[in-house]
Amino acid sequence: MSLVVQKYGGTSVANIDKIASVARKVIRTREAGNDVVVVLSAMAGETDRLINMAQKAADEPDAREYDSLISTGEQVTVTLLAIMLNGMGCPAKSFLGFQVRVLTDQAFKKARILQVETTAIRDELKKGTVVVVAGFQGVDRENNVTTLGRGGSDTSAVALAAALKADVCDIYSDVDGVYTTDPNICSRARRMDRITYDEMLEMARAGAKVLQPRAVELAKKYNVPVYVKSSFTDEGGTLVTKEERDMEKEVVSGVTYDRDQAKITVVHVPDRPGVAARLFTPLSEHNIVVDMIIQNASIDGHTDLTFTVSRKDISEATRIISEVLKDVDAEKMEVDDNVAKVSIIGVGMISHSGVAAKMFATLAKEGINIMMISTSEIKVSCVVEAKYTELAVTVLHDAFGLEKES
Amino acid sequence: MSLVVQKYGGTSVANIDKIASVARKVIRTREAGNDVVVVLSAMAGETDRLINMAQKAADEPDAREYDSLISTGEQVTVTLLAIMLNGMGCPAKSFLGFQVRVLTDQAFKKARILQVETTAIRDELKKGTVVVVAGFQGVDRENNVTTLGRGGSDTSAVALAAALKADVCDIYSDVDGVYTTDPNICSRARRMDRITYDEMLEMARAGAKVLQPRAVELAKKYNVPVYVKSSFTDEGGTLVTKEERDMEKEVVSGVTYDRDQAKITVVHVPDRPGVAARLFTPLSEHNIVVDMIIQNASIDGHTDLTFTVSRKDISEATRIISEVLKDVDAEKMEVDDNVAKVSIIGVGMISHSGVAAKMFATLAKEGINIMMISTSEIKVSCVVEAKYTELAVTVLHDAFGLEKES
Repeated sequence: MSLVVQKYGGTSVANIDKIASVARKVIRTREAGNDVVVVLSAMAGETDRLINMAQKAADEPDAREYDSLISTGEQVTVTLLAIMLNGMGCPAKSFLGFQVRVLTDQAFKKARILQVETTAIRDELKKGTVVVVAGFQGVDRENNVTTLGRGGSDTSAVALAAALKADVCDIYSDVDGVYTTDPNICSRARRMDRITYDEMLEMARAGAKVLQPRAVELAKKYNVPVYVKSSFTDEGGTLVTKEERDMEKEVVSGVTYDRDQAKITVVHVPDRPGVAARLFTPLSEHNIVVDMIIQNASIDGHTDLTFTVSRKDISEATRIISEVLKDVDAEKMEVDDNVAKVSIIGVGMISHSGVAAKMFATLAKEGINIMMISTSEIKVSCVVEAKYTELAVTVLHDAFGLEKES
Repeated sequence: MSLVVQKYGGTSVANIDKIASVARKVIRTREAGNDVVVVLSAMAGETDRLINMAQKAADEPDAREYDSLISTGEQVTVTLLAIMLNGMGCPAKSFLGFQVRVLTDQAFKKARILQVETTAIRDELKKGTVVVVAGFQGVDRENNVTTLGRGGSDTSAVALAAALKADVCDIYSDVDGVYTTDPNICSRARRMDRITYDEMLEMARAGAKVLQPRAVELAKKYNVPVYVKSSFTDEGGTLVTKEERDMEKEVVSGVTYDRDQAKITVVHVPDRPGVAARLFTPLSEHNIVVDMIIQNASIDGHTDLTFTVSRKDISEATRIISEVLKDVDAEKMEVDDNVAKVSIIGVGMISHSGVAAKMFATLAKEGINIMMISTSEIKVSCVVEAKYTELAVTVLHDAFGLEKES
């Protein structure tokens, strides 16, 4: 008897018929002798519809109210699935964030999970009930409804799997696994059977949309095996798991890209202690994630500071930075949102030299200028002009021989 | 400084523009120096849309899940109004049933309020915040979401007004007050400036849709002055309040009708103790409200028992009664849903004789057959064939001279 957490994304619950096929999949899993906890997203398009209403109601919707509004999307899908399961003779019960209870901090729109209570869910599982949990939502200590940010349902699912010590967390969506790169860009992209948490994390961070980075972080922390599967076929799938010896042989396992990038340069700023803190503290206070940061070599005691943020944060970030420009004696600020980040990823990279150099040479050969570079133990990222995204991805995929199973 | 509870119905919040005009009304009330608690229904049509989804998901949707599903309609309107108020510079905060907390029993779909906690709301009012509460919903002791039944938002508003000891509870809808009868049926219908709780209660029970009977009961119990107003005009309105001496002069103050009636007759049942209990206990256990009950004179130790239920309960009621028919040795059951109830109402009735007789004579003169009669201290109701509804209402309105202010 295993405990299985299954998460279905918005396209898998887009209408009553699709919810019915989710119901059948859940019943099959239960009849195979498993305890089942289901986590659902809102119907595809529903969250956008709600956000649109909020934006019609005010230019800058109050964050607390916004979260309570958009959390209704998941409330609709979990209750409909529970109604359907009960109708099919399978006992089922829906749980909202406050009913679980999924306790989060108070960072509305991108709250972090602090604790998942499991007593109520375990009681239901013991009775043989299928538990259907609303993804994406939680409550803070004052019972305000919070949401976890876009794609937060993945995080909900992994957090539940971790808290319940589930045997596996299946993430169902409209893709059937993790690919070496985006098949829409590169026809030679190949589905991987397995990938390590670290690789998946870098791929997710670098723009692969299959799994939320936060979900992967959580899975790694609590060692939850995550299976990325398609809800429309029983074949395929990629297991995200901890590193094993034989996984090391691949130097580079994937190429990713992220067009959701904007570059801000603070020009001619005095090179003295405290300047970076003055710039980046207010950004972090507004929950704006800064991705890459580069500081030029100092000339005449001055330097340029360049960093990237998510494109949706650009107006807030420029407003905040323009307020501190004088404070830090900077000359001006330049913004460029016509950029993309292209990355190569692989756990084997750490033990192989020359991987980064090969990446730069491959891009250079195509005349693609590199604006920013950042590296980690298992990743090299380059910021390039947005128009080169597809070209860069394709030539890197070829250069590292990813079309072949190694 | 007064505390005002305002309730807006579905047509008053049917879209963003209408919610904006509610927001302006709320702000005007606050700027006049009042503390304001707003209670909202779902957008007109939204609850039906959700019910429709539930019915597509299963023939008999699980009641717990059904309630959690349909409660999302109010969650959308309260958060949108709070977003709008904040956007207009008026601090506002939405409260869902579990956040208030509105504690109810566990009778899903028609839960009754047990207790309304006021600490959180009072704290917000003290800060000058407008509190926007989701009507129609509550939670039971186990944190299951419950709903109060159709029109339950009126009940939510009055319960909040009672718990907060509000100075007045304004009920805004698309009608501008309580009329002597339905103006759509009788052009001589007149809006009343005031009406007693008891009269309003009988009118609501007898089919006037302006206010939920449960809301009026609560208002009477806690002596909450209720103002029925139109959200589209500042004029008019009817105050529902306790009886005062000068209100006695009107013998009959209103004529109502209710087409949502079905008549069930249990034929040839032995006239012995316990039979009625055997019939009506299972109905009440299924939360089916029986309105009028009539038992014929006993012949040969047998009698016929006739009663009326709401038309929506007819299939469940007949199923239940058919199960106990044998138990009580009845011959058969007859069902007639082609009936309507017409009532005359007035606090003055109790001290005037001949009111009922005048009603019967008025109906007889038009050849309208009376199938059932029930009377209370301030009401006489007759069940008649449905096709006579409009005629009966009009002739009674004329017979008691209701078009003239007395």
